[in-house]
This record gives sequence, structure tokens and C-alpha cells, in this order.
Amino acid sequence: MPSLTENPGRTVVAAVIGLGSMGLGMARSMKRAGLDVVGYDISSAAIDRFVAVGGRGAATPANAAKNADIVVSVVVNSAQTEAVLFGTHGVAEAMKSKAVFISSATMDPAVACDLSQRAEALGFHYLDAPISGGATKAVNGDLTIMASGSKQAFDAARPALDAMAGKVYELGDAAGTGAAFKMINQLLAGVHIAAACEAITFAAKQGLDLDKVYEVITASAGNSWMFENRVRHVLAGDYTPLSAIEIFVKDLGIVQDMARSERYPVPLVAAALQMYLAASGAGMGRDDDSSLARLYAQLSGAKLPGVNG
Amino acid sequence: MPSLTENPGRTVVAAVIGLGSMGLGMARSMKRAGLDVVGYDISSAAIDRFVAVGGRGAATPANAAKNADIVVSVVVNSAQTEAVLFGTHGVAEAMKSKAVFISSATMDPAVACDLSQRAEALGFHYLDAPISGGATKAVNGDLTIMASGSKQAFDAARPALDAMAGKVYELGDAAGTGAAFKMINQLLAGVHIAAACEAITFAAKQGLDLDKVYEVITASAGNSWMFENRVRHVLAGDYTPLSAIEIFVKDLGIVQDMARSERYPVPLVAAALQMYLAASGAGMGRDDDSSLARLYAQLSGAKLPGVNG
Repeated sequence: MPSLTENPGRTVVAAVIGLGSMGLGMARSMKRAGLDVVGYDISSAAIDRFVAVGGRGAATPANAAKNADIVVSVVVNSAQTEAVLFGTHGVAEAMKSKAVFISSATMDPAVACDLSQRAEALGFHYLDAPISGGATKAVNGDLTIMASGSKQAFDAARPALDAMAGKVYELGDAAGTGAAFKMINQLLAGVHIAAACEAITFAAKQGLDLDKVYEVITASAGNSWMFENRVRHVLAGDYTPLSAIEIFVKDLGIVQDMARSERYPVPLVAAALQMYLAASGAGMGRDDDSSLARLYAQLSGAKLPGVNG
Repeated sequence: MPSLTENPGRTVVAAVIGLGSMGLGMARSMKRAGLDVVGYDISSAAIDRFVAVGGRGAATPANAAKNADIVVSVVVNSAQTEAVLFGTHGVAEAMKSKAVFISSATMDPAVACDLSQRAEALGFHYLDAPISGGATKAVNGDLTIMASGSKQAFDAARPALDAMAGKVYELGDAAGTGAAFKMINQLLAGVHIAAACEAITFAAKQGLDLDKVYEVITASAGNSWMFENRVRHVLAGDYTPLSAIEIFVKDLGIVQDMARSERYPVPLVAAALQMYLAASGAGMGRDDDSSLARLYAQLSGAKLPGVNG
């Protein structure tokens, strides 16, 4: 089956549902690549922002999907994804036959499988395609996408994937595999942020030179992508949310539920999740996930830059 | 004070106490740099191996230290370091005035401070200098050293540091700071190995393609130095000890004891330490630290390469 881009003379129509910082960036990347992009968000202000940069707005998800070859869902979790698909004025009631629904939310692989089966029963394709990378990569078309689905789903999605991603991992022919890879990444990311905050605040408690700790650790075997990235926020005392505590309350919660269901013990995840819950309970749920360092400081009297020291 | 290398015509004499894979490599690096090196080990076979590559052997630590400008202690922990210094035929009874004792074992910073004070009271210098890097870096003179101590200790130690290390972090003028930095590194390293093993075995439990998981994670935000390094052992099914489970039983135990003493909570360390203890209790204490993956497989029925799958 030829991909849609191989059909000369016809502009591919893409709908983006969810125009937050990620969805707006992805919509703009697709416009820049020459797709005709229509956007929907529950916030009319978000739609207005997209219209202000030349996009088209729609009144409902179904309206956005009506003539679309590709629908990209950029919402937070599986419940929102299900509502986008099958809720009132959901896209499923309007999807063209053979069009593709690209789901980017992080979710339990079993839920991704279920949504995919329900989509295919209605005659459209489903690509399980969680994303990695922040808002800057979204607007630059440089996301990493961990995707799985049928060949037909990949073929139909290709113009959008090419526009949005710097790297697409094609991980198998069944929905759920992309989600499973993303959950392995989130397991590690969530534990590494907690470890980074436990370590840097322990260094602070001992009165070590934290800039020197950062220099030494990032050049040593104790380094992680998250230590290198998030400890910068701690050293700057800047907890503006780039990714919030609540994201890992959600994602490590999914990992823990999956693991319990599969009879697989996850003691590191369990310990980290308790710290994210405590940070949220202490009022930092919407702050940057590096706020775990502030929690450790509260619990120990350690002094951190811009917090209490 | 001029360093010893600035005293023309006189060969610096260095003693190495502990000629295991690390100590032997460090002794050879110093010989290659032109130092006169004498070695001691409790195993006469280890001394023989050093003599076979052109080194001089000694009958006791005190004998090795007798004419040395620099004594490098390459033993496992603080108890062995104390024995090397102050035990029967220990180096302290023979150290020349103004010579320097370089301690490379990972230990509680408070113990490093105590040993340093006792050394200085006897008229010789003490450099707190934990090392990072494996046997290959030791023999190539390319270790990383996290050092603290007086200017006199650094000056006296310089010919040995230059010969053994690719990078020397000078972290302060008091013993204990080097040890504290090393403990922060070990906290992170120990937690990251446990997280890597929890994650890769969870991927195995779900039947994911583990080589693909390795490819995706090492290019993603979930990566760590330890994931990248240790998961290779898991994929190869090779648990030959490069660094053993017992090392982290020891090092995370030190972190936990330090943290308890300072009233600092370390839930991630605590969870990881339990897994190292379980691996040791299950008979894997002397195997590679990536054996935590085999433990997770035992506890969950996951299939790993070369183990049960």
C-alpha cells in the first residue's frame, strides 16, 4: 500500500487533538512540513493560539477528524485518549475508513491494545506511538517516537511521523509494544530523578560544594541522563515545571500497577513513587519533578540553593 | 614546598600495599612513570606476580614503607586500611617523616578524617583519595581520583597521582571530602545498577526484544552510565565479576549508616540495598553486580539470556 505522500497532488489532512505545549508544537511541525492541519483542544484559548499561527480550529474532536487522513492525539493519559476516541463528539464517530489514529499518551500497554482493537473494529488504523522529548523538540519536529502497529497504520501515519520526529523506533506490528517500551523508559527516568535528588541533597546535607559534585558525578560512573539534566534545576533553585511531579505520580503508578498484575516486584519503583506522592501531598505536585530535592531538604534540614540556603 | 619530582637526581620511592587487579595496575603505572616501586600483599602469589613484571616485593607493609616517599594503600575497606596503617607491621611504624600515605579505599568520611588525624599526629601526611575506574584504567594510568588533603599531602603525592590518574579532582584541604564525594557516586551507582536490573528484567517479563530495549533506552532520557554498562552483561548472560554484588552490599551499607547518623532519609538506597542483600543471600555475592537481574528473574519467572531463557 503506497503511503499518502505518494499520492501526488493531494494535501494530507491531519487533525491534532490536544494543543498544549507538546500538541501545539507537533501541529506546527506538521504545518511546516506541508500538511493541512486542523486542531482541537478543550480550552478555546489553546485553539486561538493555534489559529494565531495560521492553523485551523475545530469545534469538537469529531469535527477535527471529519476529513482527516491522520488524527494525532496529544493528551495526558489513557482516560483522556479514550474520551478523545469514544466520548461524546469523539473522533471515532467521524474517522474516515483507512485513516489512522496516532496515540501519543503514556499508558498501560494493555489499555493501548484494547483501544487499538476497538479502533480497528470500526475500520480505522491505530498507531501506538508514545513520544519522548520536550516542547522544544516538538516544535522543531525532533521528537523521539516509540511506535508499534500494523504496516497499514505505519504507512498511513508516515507523513505525520516524518514531520514530528527526529527518530521513530518501529517496535513491532501490535499496539502495546510502543507503550511497553515507554513504560520501561519512565520506570528508569522516575527512579533516576529520585536518586539524583536523594544524592544531591545528601551532598548538601554534608556541606559539600554542589557545583563540584555536579562536575564530578557527571564525569563518573554515577551519572544518568536525569542527574545531568535535573540537578541543574536544583543548583539554579528553579522549580518552574518543565515536567511536573504529577507526571511521575501517574507514570510510576502505571508501572507499579502493571508489575503487580504481572507478579513482578519493583522495590525501586515503589520507593521512588512514595517520594513523588509525598512531594505532591506536600503541595509540590504541579512543580518541576526535581522538587523531590526540596522534599529531601524539608525532611532533613539540608540547605539547597534558592530554597533555604 | 617543591614537589619531589622537582628534586633532580633522586628517584621517588613508592610502596603499594595491596596488589590485586587494581593495586597491581597502579604499581605498574608508577613503575612506567619512572618511580621505584615496592609492593606488598597478604597473598605471596600476588607479590610474585608483581616481581614477575619487574617489581620489588616486601615481607610486610612496614618493610615496604621503610624507605618510601609515598605509600599507596589499595585495599577494600576502612578496616583493612586501618590494619595497613596501624596493625602489626603496619606502615605507620616505618613511615618517613613528611612521606605521604595515599588511601584509595571507599569509606565513611568520618573514618577517613580519623585515620588522617592519627597519621598526621605521627608526622606523616595523609591523602584521602578514593579511585574510580576499573583494572584496565589502573594499568593504563588513567584512573579518576577524588582527592582531599593538605597542600603538603598533595605535593608529596603528586608523582604518584600523575602516574596513576587521568583525572585528579582536588576537592578540599581536609581528609573526608574525597570520601564524601565517592560515597555520593556510589549511592548513585548502586541505585542505578538496581534500577537497570529492575527495568531490563521487567522488559524480559513482558517478552520485549531486549536488544531493542537497550538500543532505545541508551538513546533516551532513561539512560544511565550503569544501564549502558551493566545491561550489556545481562544481554550477554555473562555474570563474571567485574565488580561484585558484595561491593555494593558494603558501599550502600556505608551510605545508609552515614545517612542514619545524619538523620537523612535514603529510601532509594534502602530499597536497592535490600536487593543486593537478597542477591548475596541467594548465593550471588561474589558474582557481577548485574546479577541483580538474575535475582529479579528468580523472583518473577522472567527469562533472561544465558540464565533460563
